[in-house]
Amino acid sequence: MADDSKGSIERLIQTLARLPGLGPRSARRAVLALLRRREQLLQPLIDALVAVRDGVCRCSTCGNLDTTDPCAVCRAESRDGSLICVVEDVGTLWAIERTRAYRGLYHVLGGTLSALEGIGPDDLSIDALVARAGTPPVREVVLALNATVDGQTTAHVIAERLAEAQAAVTVTRLAHGVPIGGELGYLDDGTLSAAMRARQALPRTS
Amino acid sequence: MADDSKGSIERLIQTLARLPGLGPRSARRAVLALLRRREQLLQPLIDALVAVRDGVCRCSTCGNLDTTDPCAVCRAESRDGSLICVVEDVGTLWAIERTRAYRGLYHVLGGTLSALEGIGPDDLSIDALVARAGTPPVREVVLALNATVDGQTTAHVIAERLAEAQAAVTVTRLAHGVPIGGELGYLDDGTLSAAMRARQALPRTS
Repeated sequence: MADDSKGSIERLIQTLARLPGLGPRSARRAVLALLRRREQLLQPLIDALVAVRDGVCRCSTCGNLDTTDPCAVCRAESRDGSLICVVEDVGTLWAIERTRAYRGLYHVLGGTLSALEGIGPDDLSIDALVARAGTPPVREVVLALNATVDGQTTAHVIAERLAEAQAAVTVTRLAHGVPIGGELGYLDDGTLSAAMRARQALPRTS
Repeated sequence: MADDSKGSIERLIQTLARLPGLGPRSARRAVLALLRRREQLLQPLIDALVAVRDGVCRCSTCGNLDTTDPCAVCRAESRDGSLICVVEDVGTLWAIERTRAYRGLYHVLGGTLSALEGIGPDDLSIDALVARAGTPPVREVVLALNATVDGQTTAHVIAERLAEAQAAVTVTRLAHGVPIGGELGYLDDGTLSAAMRARQALPRTS
């Protein structure tokens, strides 16, 4: 009986626990906080979720998530329309935007090829990318895909498709190397050898 | 511009990040998951939050949170009405319920006395507890308060109030001792000495 009637609280705990990074324990703590601070926390969370549900859509050009279509990145006149950065998902797009090191456009694939999960080229927006790459003023496609087997397979397939379509673009990928702050002794062999092969001359001090 | 228009996603990240156990990084991951799985995750979360907002109230008898008043615990005829377990908050009540080691009623104080946070006896439901303790069939009040300075001060004040009111109840507290699975070498001195003082005879094996 206690379990039945505690239903709505229990259901909220279970729903929150399905979010990545939250287990049953932390979901319970979160629900307690929500119940304690209804006006400051519970209601704002409902409002924020409803706003995202009703307001956020996928950009039909690049696949980004935003409140407008085309998205703010595609609409921004200050950005370099000759560059398209290919990312697996919106999370990577956000990460690159946070660096402020890139001012071109994006193309969100919606995943990577995966034999294990049965994701083939037709499940990703590769055709749309090839079409965009063939449209001026695009001149460079930067592949910012994960340095995993699936990510690199996807990068390879995209490069092939762009070559087949005879798109007049340069295809580049992110540099591999030692992460900033990384200690060499803890680095994996693959990264270390990639960094060694791609070693660069120090600028001369006069 | 990109920041402005990303407003509703950013606001959801910031609201989620205010929950205990979630930082900006994990909030961002959670929002990505919500956006990816709108029907399976975003909508159920909104529904669950609205159900809690609209359905959960405080029990006017014991202070528990439930969809009914009196709460399911107070209503349950199978429970022992002669026992009242005093807890700081609903989180402790849930924890004790999960043990299934207690079948009496509860009294949720709504906090502990705290000079630092300016919480005095009038901010807690101590008067209501004293009134309940004086009403048959109550015969025992179990103080299940945190083993912290504030928790123990609160326990002391409650015991005094019950004595002043000449309530015909036994006042008990949870046992102190070695946690199950705890290694003695890592245990703090206070717990270890409490466990030593409260040492118990092993049952005789014949």
